[in-house]
Amino acid sequence: MAVLPETRRYAVLGTGALGGFYGAKLQQAGFTVHFLLHSDYDHVRQKGLWVESCWGDFHLPQVNAYAAVEEMPVCEGVIVALKATQNHLLPRLLPPVLADNGVVILLQNGLGAEPEIANWVGPERVIGGLCFISSNKVGPGHICHLDYGSVLLAEYGPGYAPQGITPRLQQVQADFQRAGIPTSLSPDLMLARWQKLVWNIPFNGLSVIFNADTQQMIRDPEARALAETLMHEVIQGAAACGRHLPQTLISEMLASTEKMAPYRTSMKIDYERKRPLELEAIFANPLRYAQQGGIQMPRVEMLYRQLQVLDRLNRGIPA
Amino acid sequence: MAVLPETRRYAVLGTGALGGFYGAKLQQAGFTVHFLLHSDYDHVRQKGLWVESCWGDFHLPQVNAYAAVEEMPVCEGVIVALKATQNHLLPRLLPPVLADNGVVILLQNGLGAEPEIANWVGPERVIGGLCFISSNKVGPGHICHLDYGSVLLAEYGPGYAPQGITPRLQQVQADFQRAGIPTSLSPDLMLARWQKLVWNIPFNGLSVIFNADTQQMIRDPEARALAETLMHEVIQGAAACGRHLPQTLISEMLASTEKMAPYRTSMKIDYERKRPLELEAIFANPLRYAQQGGIQMPRVEMLYRQLQVLDRLNRGIPA
Repeated sequence: MAVLPETRRYAVLGTGALGGFYGAKLQQAGFTVHFLLHSDYDHVRQKGLWVESCWGDFHLPQVNAYAAVEEMPVCEGVIVALKATQNHLLPRLLPPVLADNGVVILLQNGLGAEPEIANWVGPERVIGGLCFISSNKVGPGHICHLDYGSVLLAEYGPGYAPQGITPRLQQVQADFQRAGIPTSLSPDLMLARWQKLVWNIPFNGLSVIFNADTQQMIRDPEARALAETLMHEVIQGAAACGRHLPQTLISEMLASTEKMAPYRTSMKIDYERKRPLELEAIFANPLRYAQQGGIQMPRVEMLYRQLQVLDRLNRGIPA
Repeated sequence: MAVLPETRRYAVLGTGALGGFYGAKLQQAGFTVHFLLHSDYDHVRQKGLWVESCWGDFHLPQVNAYAAVEEMPVCEGVIVALKATQNHLLPRLLPPVLADNGVVILLQNGLGAEPEIANWVGPERVIGGLCFISSNKVGPGHICHLDYGSVLLAEYGPGYAPQGITPRLQQVQADFQRAGIPTSLSPDLMLARWQKLVWNIPFNGLSVIFNADTQQMIRDPEARALAETLMHEVIQGAAACGRHLPQTLISEMLASTEKMAPYRTSMKIDYERKRPLELEAIFANPLRYAQQGGIQMPRVEMLYRQLQVLDRLNRGIPA
């Protein structure tokens, strides 16, 4: 796997709560960053990006803003921070902006997007990224970073075969860390994705069912017990994919959720805003991978079906 | 099991959508009926009961209304039509009003209330009743009967042992039918209760989760599939209690739900009115009975836990 060139320009596809924040941090640190925008294009082109952050507020009065990928220069690091529900746009968005010697860095929840992206750009050009951050877009070009903020990066390989820690991964880590982003590396992307799913499947899913934040859920004995039961199923799903997560992860995650400030999950925020829920990435794909490994996750599947119904009713979509 | 005396007076404990309707029908047919009331007492004492019914509207300008059981005469038929969540009141409510030669007729959903009642009045004085009716209380002493209306009666025996069709059961049936209520009899109360649970567990439960009526659920492929899966589990629960329901029941119930006018389940109405949900009778007890028979119902259990959380959040009850 080739290293990245000396000069690493970054593109951000999806300048929202995640892409806006991490892209702004990179630009603030001196990197050249090009931002693709949609509804905020005019505002950001004129006024730049405004980041309220628990790490320190800052304003970038001028950013390279684009309304179309065709106008963007090719970049060596293309950060994809779209909602996973928008990934069907990537076959069109990626080719114009990804340099031949560049990589796609997918900052999303869930499982199963990397093989798709690999179909379009080649598996040797895909890095997966997991963000541990509370961040919201609160207005045009206005991002509010509330808590946490670390990123975990891992190479994608065909069929999610572990790729180890590559020099290229360390290059991206160095850039992110120069930008003040705590960044760790994993040799096994699928392991990292399943580990995050252990939290995301119960808490994202149940937050929509219960219309509740993390504190309301963790304080309720039945909600907590249900989250725990779902976590056990997810760990079994991971094992079906050959990824063995320790059972102690569950009590650790429950304890850290107790200590977290009340948090509205991304899925609950999407639901409130009547946006499509990221059900493919967070539910359908993990269910499929587990099933291919011979494991059913009946409660996860039930939650998935419930969320499909709620998502349709919420957005007024006929079944 | 003794027959009932010639003169059968009825008491109605819980003069709401069910008790108000069936009690009014009995009085209209010439039976002596005594109604226990709570919030509607003054109104009903002064103005009687007003029944809008798809079988024909009628008004009873005067009814025997009571605010306390101690003021009621003893009756040979005591119809319990309280919400199951109120059953903790029965040890106090039943003794003053139940004649020595009388029976309790429990018109409720769910499973497991009869053994409790049997503890207080003796198992030989308990009849279970299942109502197939769309009826709402829409104002003080004002009942709106929308559709259906039949009742199924069955004797309770210790441990829900089947009691067959007794002469006493036929006497109550004759009274109900004289009052224009289509009334059938079952030799096996527990079988009847499980059969109704096959519908009530999925549709009552999911109607709260989805904030949806029966038509919205039956038209949505995932909601329908989930109802079907839950029905399979309930049939397994019934089998664990030695009650073998045919699998064809499922497709019959789904087909009849398709044909029903859009219907808000009783549990959804309770939820909307921020009343406690009948979770013990409809979920916890069936789960317990199935478990005692060696069967887990994991999806039913998950739905139960979800509803416990929603019920608490809905009523602002700290966990």
